[in-house]
Amino acid sequence: MPAAVAGPEIERLIQLLARLPGLGPRSARRAALFLIKKRVALMAPLADALQNAMQKIAVCKVCGNIDTQNPCTICTDERRDASIIVVVADVSDLWALERAQAVNGRYHVLGGTLSPLDGVGPQDLSIDALVARAHEPSVQEVILALNATVDGQTTAHYITELLLDARVKVTRLAHGVPVGGELDYLDEGTLAAAIRQRTTL
Amino acid sequence: MPAAVAGPEIERLIQLLARLPGLGPRSARRAALFLIKKRVALMAPLADALQNAMQKIAVCKVCGNIDTQNPCTICTDERRDASIIVVVADVSDLWALERAQAVNGRYHVLGGTLSPLDGVGPQDLSIDALVARAHEPSVQEVILALNATVDGQTTAHYITELLLDARVKVTRLAHGVPVGGELDYLDEGTLAAAIRQRTTL
Repeated sequence: MPAAVAGPEIERLIQLLARLPGLGPRSARRAALFLIKKRVALMAPLADALQNAMQKIAVCKVCGNIDTQNPCTICTDERRDASIIVVVADVSDLWALERAQAVNGRYHVLGGTLSPLDGVGPQDLSIDALVARAHEPSVQEVILALNATVDGQTTAHYITELLLDARVKVTRLAHGVPVGGELDYLDEGTLAAAIRQRTTL
Repeated sequence: MPAAVAGPEIERLIQLLARLPGLGPRSARRAALFLIKKRVALMAPLADALQNAMQKIAVCKVCGNIDTQNPCTICTDERRDASIIVVVADVSDLWALERAQAVNGRYHVLGGTLSPLDGVGPQDLSIDALVARAHEPSVQEVILALNATVDGQTTAHYITELLLDARVKVTRLAHGVPVGGELDYLDEGTLAAAIRQRTTL
């Protein structure tokens, strides 16, 4: 579309919206139009919310979580089990585990996974801080909640090695059949793992 | 996810993003995290763009287009053929036609289509203004570029009746096979229309 049609300010808004994950150029247009039509109910609150969040965002100096306080809500929550550190690659994984209410421990966000091909080495991740935390006397277990991909598992192995001399139990997520999953759609690796790690009824 | 995990400002941002078309609760989370990580490169510009667009947005008093000037860029563009008025239901349809560079006339945005079931009557749409424009001596053709749905076609018929005494040619979009479309995926109505309105090679 020629820029002249909708005005430069609207075009700029569309361009920026199109950079969000999940929105393409076409849906960004739809989103912009939707915002413009709901100027009072949505557009103004969204502009304010962006400003507010921008001013308040902090990266937790303990675990690397993103929050509006530092240390973050989880690190300062006394009801959380301080003996468990759940290691995740990214804040989105932390959010996913929290949504599932899967674990009541604290977290450690690595900021990615080791990836030699992409030039991501141990110094690029928050691994030293994790090792230091794992040596604290209160910590008893480190759960490696990393993706079941090559990079995720490489990172898990690397961290396991580093934690050998810390007096902590190092565990990882179970492999197996996803809840609600059908066997004949699963890959061989998952099925083999599910059989190997079968549980007694 | 408990609101306590990500901070109220971030949760508010996620809630508002989730109301955009094309983003659900889950992708809104991803989008919020993406924004937070690109605070300088994307989040700040987006907040500014929303503010800017919000201040500048105007609805064209002539045609109902959304622009940052009033009358809009199209209505004031002398290179546009003022003898043709393209009637669309919504600004998004106008944008679609402009993207396709389908027509060089001016537009008229109705603001919807007649829909007795939803309680949308002629008085809810910009129909009187269209009839007035169609009576201007410079106007020779009114193209009804409305959806090929029941509501769209009802609206087209209604407008055609109203324009009987105006000295304008009233036309509508052709029905037929979409460019790139395959015959065996098309519905019977479209195929019948494509045969009926076949063109000579």
